[in-house]
Amino acid sequence: MPDHHSTAPITDEEVFAAHEGGKLTVETTKPLDSKRALSIAYTPGVAQVSRAIHHDLAKHATHTWASRLVVVLSDGTAVLGLGNIGAAASLPVMEGKSALFREFGGLNSIPLVIDTTDVDEIVETMVRLRPSFGAVNLEDVVAPRCFELEQKLIEALDCPVMHDDQHGTAVVVLAALTNAARLTGRSFADTRVVIAGAGAAGIAVTDILLEAGVEDIILTDSQGTIHRDRDDLNEVKARVAKTTNRNNIIGGITEALDGADVFIGVSSSKVPEEAVANMAENAIIFALSNPDPEITPDVAARHAAVVATGRSDFPNQINNVLAFPGIFRGALDSGARRITPSMKVAAATAIADVVGEDLRADYIVPSPLDDRVAAGVAQAVMNAAGEDGATG
Amino acid sequence: MPDHHSTAPITDEEVFAAHEGGKLTVETTKPLDSKRALSIAYTPGVAQVSRAIHHDLAKHATHTWASRLVVVLSDGTAVLGLGNIGAAASLPVMEGKSALFREFGGLNSIPLVIDTTDVDEIVETMVRLRPSFGAVNLEDVVAPRCFELEQKLIEALDCPVMHDDQHGTAVVVLAALTNAARLTGRSFADTRVVIAGAGAAGIAVTDILLEAGVEDIILTDSQGTIHRDRDDLNEVKARVAKTTNRNNIIGGITEALDGADVFIGVSSSKVPEEAVANMAENAIIFALSNPDPEITPDVAARHAAVVATGRSDFPNQINNVLAFPGIFRGALDSGARRITPSMKVAAATAIADVVGEDLRADYIVPSPLDDRVAAGVAQAVMNAAGEDGATG
Repeated sequence: MPDHHSTAPITDEEVFAAHEGGKLTVETTKPLDSKRALSIAYTPGVAQVSRAIHHDLAKHATHTWASRLVVVLSDGTAVLGLGNIGAAASLPVMEGKSALFREFGGLNSIPLVIDTTDVDEIVETMVRLRPSFGAVNLEDVVAPRCFELEQKLIEALDCPVMHDDQHGTAVVVLAALTNAARLTGRSFADTRVVIAGAGAAGIAVTDILLEAGVEDIILTDSQGTIHRDRDDLNEVKARVAKTTNRNNIIGGITEALDGADVFIGVSSSKVPEEAVANMAENAIIFALSNPDPEITPDVAARHAAVVATGRSDFPNQINNVLAFPGIFRGALDSGARRITPSMKVAAATAIADVVGEDLRADYIVPSPLDDRVAAGVAQAVMNAAGEDGATG
Repeated sequence: MPDHHSTAPITDEEVFAAHEGGKLTVETTKPLDSKRALSIAYTPGVAQVSRAIHHDLAKHATHTWASRLVVVLSDGTAVLGLGNIGAAASLPVMEGKSALFREFGGLNSIPLVIDTTDVDEIVETMVRLRPSFGAVNLEDVVAPRCFELEQKLIEALDCPVMHDDQHGTAVVVLAALTNAARLTGRSFADTRVVIAGAGAAGIAVTDILLEAGVEDIILTDSQGTIHRDRDDLNEVKARVAKTTNRNNIIGGITEALDGADVFIGVSSSKVPEEAVANMAENAIIFALSNPDPEITPDVAARHAAVVATGRSDFPNQINNVLAFPGIFRGALDSGARRITPSMKVAAATAIADVVGEDLRADYIVPSPLDDRVAAGVAQAVMNAAGEDGATG
């Protein structure tokens, strides 16, 4: 037996052994160990349930597993740091995600990896399978295609759909920033945020921070700051160019960071120490690229009051598992058909609230293993779903 | 707690209570209760497994759950005795089938119900999802479309595909007939079989009996015996017209049964007592229509040495669960890419062999709860897969 609390380095053998045969199993909720049990769960009993659903579709939600089943859907085009490795090779990641839904959200979840990158074909496939599931967690789809795919899935399916690489990350960043701002005495309206990376996570972080009241955001991509005068922007970047960079700063990350309060890195590009050295007093640095942060935490700490990363071996890990299990649990428990911006903000607030009075520079987000998190997020999302009219 | 061994009638309340929230749950194979466990099963550990699969697709079979995952697929067009009730209403049946795969085959299985009846769209959907599963159990698709759909799925997917309503039934019928013929001293070559019903089950029973050495088979449908001169036959019936009814008997079930050794009913039409009264001495009657057999067992017993039905409350229940869990288990364990005719015949022999020396007129097939069955079938199918060249 592996010792789960061992601090020894994880070995290849350990990783491959843990994945042999896969990480998920489908079990029955009741044993089928007698003729009577078979007659209830299968023929002839099951015919009554099918007949009842045929006459009243509402019973599909109450008498099958589908309405609380989350599909983890990927085309394998942007898998972790590995890039476009295809559907088959992405499956271990999606199995892991389904396992997290079970462990942290108490939800059933199955991975479906799809061997096409055509947005309309993916949407068509999920529409055909609609009676089989209750929600879709979109995962590891490359930007900017992920934006179009998520939008079209939301329009085509009458159930919660969320691209976790966008919104799971955004929710946890907002939670962390809420606490970091509190710690450094900032209000969102007076905070200037620089986001390095305008992919799935960067765009979603921008959207949720705007929703939460941050007014001054500058995004950078590989060509430098995103501003209104650039003519090389895709549709999504062009959209955020209109609502960010209000001072129209032109240049690179160094120009962007000059005097900024917050740096959020969600690209894999490095940021030089000189650049962060010019940030405001008591700066906040979230260097979230994995496994190699945009700037190493100890260097960042020389110039910032609060530092967070995406890694579990440093304090303040910005980990999506803080968000998605509770978000989907709350959405499904409330019967919501959409995951709205206010539900996401409510999730972030709930995550931040778990930290509460224990707030310190090295404790701005709870541990992924803190079992108060998913329950709190689910409740907050349920409440927001009701207020939002997203239910029903 | 319901008493599973109670003989009291099953109530509606009991059935609906057992189905609340569905009958399946997805669990993790290992707990995710420590940072170390998370690092192994999810990031960063999982990246190594995905990278390994990307470089060597064979590891997809060994290090994900997909290669041993059976999809129970239905469009809901021929569900039990309920007919075309649609995908959503069919889901409880498919969940039940997945539950049986777990309980009797020790396999993971998920139901996918699909909201289209277009053969090419169903095939296209499964091709797109191919990296997500290891086998397809097609279920409750209406004839004759089920024949085309099964054939096209087999051609399009490099994995075991079987329409259970056809071949599961056929395998168990062959097992039962093997023992009934032994009991009544018949050889297949000298046995005349009449099959009432030329739908999914009737055609598959015909095919497997021909494969097993029965030479004289007459099928009937709603228009009477199927013979070479009929001009109203669909493609599948026209095919069997060429290999059955060698004496070109024209008429109805009464003409067909005159002097016949075996009656197999897989339609819902009634058979009059006068018709079975004219069968050969020591006749064999399998009246498999559910819940109302083509002829009631006590009436049949006046004219037959062996009687079987599809019901659990009479002796000799012809129940597909004797076949499909072991067939898929054996096919997946052997790495077979096809379920061949000889694998099906081997499965039937294995089922018949479980009865062995306990053979009696009221015990020609084992109980569905006999745990020797699935293991024996799986082993026989594995052996046949190897001999057949279906492996690999």
